[in-house]
Amino acid sequence: MARVSQEHLDARRRQILNGAARCFARNGFHATSMQDVLREADLSAGAVYRYFRSKEQLIEAIVTEVLDAIRDTFESAAAQTPPPAPDVLMERVMEEVLTERSGLPYDGEASLPRLMIQVWTETLRNETLSAAMRQGYARVHAAWVGVVEAYQAAGLMRDDVPAAHVARTMIAVAQGFAAQQALFGTVPVSVLRDGLRALMSMGQQKAS
Amino acid sequence: MARVSQEHLDARRRQILNGAARCFARNGFHATSMQDVLREADLSAGAVYRYFRSKEQLIEAIVTEVLDAIRDTFESAAAQTPPPAPDVLMERVMEEVLTERSGLPYDGEASLPRLMIQVWTETLRNETLSAAMRQGYARVHAAWVGVVEAYQAAGLMRDDVPAAHVARTMIAVAQGFAAQQALFGTVPVSVLRDGLRALMSMGQQKAS
Repeated sequence: MARVSQEHLDARRRQILNGAARCFARNGFHATSMQDVLREADLSAGAVYRYFRSKEQLIEAIVTEVLDAIRDTFESAAAQTPPPAPDVLMERVMEEVLTERSGLPYDGEASLPRLMIQVWTETLRNETLSAAMRQGYARVHAAWVGVVEAYQAAGLMRDDVPAAHVARTMIAVAQGFAAQQALFGTVPVSVLRDGLRALMSMGQQKAS
Repeated sequence: MARVSQEHLDARRRQILNGAARCFARNGFHATSMQDVLREADLSAGAVYRYFRSKEQLIEAIVTEVLDAIRDTFESAAAQTPPPAPDVLMERVMEEVLTERSGLPYDGEASLPRLMIQVWTETLRNETLSAAMRQGYARVHAAWVGVVEAYQAAGLMRDDVPAAHVARTMIAVAQGFAAQQALFGTVPVSVLRDGLRALMSMGQQKAS
């Protein structure tokens, strides 16, 4: 058997995951079979089963990849002292996550929102997936806590509020905005930037 | 056949919907049968089919009820000039929606978040449900636009941002926060209030 390069293995894995993500986003987890994934990825059963033995393993791999990508995007967008303000930071991260730059298939609209809400429903019944979600969430949350503490240290945000509460709120905004894309169609990320910007102005206006 | 009072009909309908909501929140839409709903509501098939002919009709009735309740709660919480600030208003609405006061079954934790994320997934494949969601969302969105315009008119929020963008952002926060309850367990609504309060302070701190 010929020796296969790591590069080739990675590319093959990518091809399978993209095929699966496309099927799942289009038809849902339950209506997608491994056969559908093989057809979409244009690969034989043998080629796919070498990497993933079940639909569940495909879903878990996609979730882990997406959560890692979100955390990486977030961490690099936040790597300034002090970090960019929440409206700017959120716009940058969501632009990465909700466009063709996300690495996930992008067929005119981002596949992430449709995948995301299905994954959420799956976590209600799938302990492995639920654990992966919790772990991914904890890492994004920790990154946000660091950002909020930096705002507070720089005197940009009141510091009598626990950073963990602000982190949870910021993640809620991002999750809700992404869910809306799945439910009501794509809107520009600048809508969210505007909304946060207006909210951030409320202390200022009151004080004037 | 004895004449049955409207009150009795309403109570019976409530009993069925609560039984269904309890089943759906616990086991999911797909794993719940009409038989499960009959057992949970402690009613005969005849008694239930008089009101709802299918699981789909039950889901649609629950979604419509929940969205109406959210809008009513929101509108009454916002009925002041100017309306309460976003942190206060959001806390009030979410307290109503995520506690036993919601009218939905409350078995130690709110059933709404678990129902909500399942409904979102269903809308990807169910046009009737998707239309009900869009309609419900449009009404809550319109109510939020009114609130934002009142903030802007009172000089409490910068007015160079479209009210519709702020409304969408506020609904995203609420949706994301509710989704987190389903994914990671219940946390007090005061966490969200704190997060919004800190965000609202950012203009002020910057200006000082």
